[in-house]
Amino acid sequence: MTEIDIAALDKADTLASCRDLFDLPAQIIYLNGNSLGPLCHASAKTMQRVVLEEWGQDLISSWNKHRWIDFPLRIGARIAPLLGAAPEQVLCCDSVSVNLFKLLSAALALSKTQKPIILSHRDNFPTDLYIAEGLRDLLQQHGVHAELKLVETNALEATIAEGPAVLMLTHVDFRTGRKLDMAKLTRLAQQHGVVTIWDLSHSAGVIDLALDDCQVDFAVGCGYKFLNGGPGAPAFLYVASRHLQSIKQPLQGWMGHKASFAFNPSYEADLGINQLQTGTPSVLAMSALDAALNCFEGVSPADLNRKASALSETFLYLIEAEPALAELQLVSPRNPEIRGAQLSFSHEQAYPISQALIAAGVMVDFRAPNLLRLGFSPLYLSFADIAAAASILNYIIIENIYNKQKFRKLKRVT
Amino acid sequence: MTEIDIAALDKADTLASCRDLFDLPAQIIYLNGNSLGPLCHASAKTMQRVVLEEWGQDLISSWNKHRWIDFPLRIGARIAPLLGAAPEQVLCCDSVSVNLFKLLSAALALSKTQKPIILSHRDNFPTDLYIAEGLRDLLQQHGVHAELKLVETNALEATIAEGPAVLMLTHVDFRTGRKLDMAKLTRLAQQHGVVTIWDLSHSAGVIDLALDDCQVDFAVGCGYKFLNGGPGAPAFLYVASRHLQSIKQPLQGWMGHKASFAFNPSYEADLGINQLQTGTPSVLAMSALDAALNCFEGVSPADLNRKASALSETFLYLIEAEPALAELQLVSPRNPEIRGAQLSFSHEQAYPISQALIAAGVMVDFRAPNLLRLGFSPLYLSFADIAAAASILNYIIIENIYNKQKFRKLKRVT
Repeated sequence: MTEIDIAALDKADTLASCRDLFDLPAQIIYLNGNSLGPLCHASAKTMQRVVLEEWGQDLISSWNKHRWIDFPLRIGARIAPLLGAAPEQVLCCDSVSVNLFKLLSAALALSKTQKPIILSHRDNFPTDLYIAEGLRDLLQQHGVHAELKLVETNALEATIAEGPAVLMLTHVDFRTGRKLDMAKLTRLAQQHGVVTIWDLSHSAGVIDLALDDCQVDFAVGCGYKFLNGGPGAPAFLYVASRHLQSIKQPLQGWMGHKASFAFNPSYEADLGINQLQTGTPSVLAMSALDAALNCFEGVSPADLNRKASALSETFLYLIEAEPALAELQLVSPRNPEIRGAQLSFSHEQAYPISQALIAAGVMVDFRAPNLLRLGFSPLYLSFADIAAAASILNYIIIENIYNKQKFRKLKRVT
Repeated sequence: MTEIDIAALDKADTLASCRDLFDLPAQIIYLNGNSLGPLCHASAKTMQRVVLEEWGQDLISSWNKHRWIDFPLRIGARIAPLLGAAPEQVLCCDSVSVNLFKLLSAALALSKTQKPIILSHRDNFPTDLYIAEGLRDLLQQHGVHAELKLVETNALEATIAEGPAVLMLTHVDFRTGRKLDMAKLTRLAQQHGVVTIWDLSHSAGVIDLALDDCQVDFAVGCGYKFLNGGPGAPAFLYVASRHLQSIKQPLQGWMGHKASFAFNPSYEADLGINQLQTGTPSVLAMSALDAALNCFEGVSPADLNRKASALSETFLYLIEAEPALAELQLVSPRNPEIRGAQLSFSHEQAYPISQALIAAGVMVDFRAPNLLRLGFSPLYLSFADIAAAASILNYIIIENIYNKQKFRKLKRVT
């Protein structure tokens, strides 16, 4: 693949102009959008206005005047198309963990099976497992025999057939980038009366999701990764409309009340998705995420998905062509169809390699014990970025490892 | 009370200079700090830096470089002195409602009584009651006979003696401003083996709290009222150090794990107050609150308390001296010793009066059905502000009500 080939890919890229929406530092290739998305100009401008004018000048009246009060619903409505969800099923609020607790509780109540068993797999994102443990332990403290059942990923299908109450899965694995088959697993779960909850933290904004078509029951996801909503941005949750009249969630705060400002002493859940709200949301955090979603206007999830795949495929192609990089072991699926917008490689020197990359301006992640993790956000990365990153990685390995410390340990390929 | 008297009060005010720390709009008298505290210069400046430099330029590295990761503990440590709490017992995170759910669950587990009964009073802040209902309902769904027992405030002491598991109270009533006797009620609860949870949302930043001295078990509170942390600012929670080794809370997310970045599949609670964390906190929201706390540097809770009382006493004195204001009925306690930094008056025309005040630049709250609510923040209000607000209120009532629509209905005093 020559420079001319790379330039042709960039020329054909229909999302190329989106890069100008972002305020990326000069000389940085940002392959860390799956940890923290970068600042876009709209968020920067919005934050200045919200702080100085809305909070500073209009003060309390901004809740109505600037529609702060509607943020959770309005932002939810903007995220919905990225999830393949019809309107009024998505809400922006709290953190992924808190939202997961709401939905896990609701799912247990909704499930037709008697025993409160939550099924997941050992590779699930740890905080999701912790929250499920927390709910289990709370119930156990009061004598309820709740259970969290963890299996290997390849045992999921067989265990779904045993009919647990809830199936809780993360769509794209944070370590390997492996993408589960949402349509197939959800269908199987439904055949066995199992309520499904999907965590879309590494999916939303880069994958062509189809929650409605897959008949997913519940989902949660993150605002600060590929949605670029800012550090610790509010999360989102999805409840299929067919469940909205029958669910009940325990974190029922005044913002989810049918008449928040009536200050009635007893709770009456609001209609629809708003009943999933809890306390007062951070307007500053919501404002940054809301503005960041401007970058997705007019962009289809299919296009995002296509470019993310093309970026990672290009990177892999370039890596595989470099003899010195043969020691980098791909732990992500080789087939882009079953992979998120991410590549992970294991290498015994993954930590120093990641530090050298960062020092050279290629921002990547290291995940213990030996993973180099790269995120491929289609909104602000060019194919030229990818080629440069591959070339810098090659240079670092040759200079620092191949030619020096590890010469004898490495397999000499050329 | 003459203009000279008012000027003397301002001259003697040791907190007078704090006003310059705030970015209040010109011509506004802000009596709404108990709903949303105003923007201070430090928060405005900090937000610009955090957005453009920390997020925009340093990106993911800011979690360590700018110590984003420590915000919940660092901010908690800054709030602790305002609560009369020794270090390492206060954490900043989530919303009041979410934190209350954590502590209610922990308190039920901690309680030595067998039956999970939560005692509160009907006048408690509604969202606190909703959360307690939510926990009760979750347990009931699984066959546990949990109960939320609501009594009138004057029946609290007798019902504490019956030994419920948990006593959940709000320190300062959001409607009337009445302050409960924390020392007495907590002592009584402990005599009967009842775990106490106090909501300090209308207390922190204006009342000389003494959580440690009162031997309170747990507390929660709000960041966006008198702490001025911004709209929907993160909340805080307090756990007495004697409980930190024995509690367990269900919203156990990765930020509360002993080794967050080890990504272990099972949860192990961190030591100390940090185990109360859940998901990733909003750095933008945390930054604004952290900067707002600069305004409390070198200011003692006793001074805040004293000035807040003096402000509301001055207002009452001026109101009581105006014959046309006799129809305004004080629903707050007349004794400032049992009152928060707030005055509420009932009046059948409370809504139009509140609107006229706001139009005249005196920002107040209306609470249905007939309450005019005024907050007295000692950090940015002067006695001259209070005198002007009283004078404007008097003018509005004379012009709009007394001389016009309601002449016959109002008692003519002069």
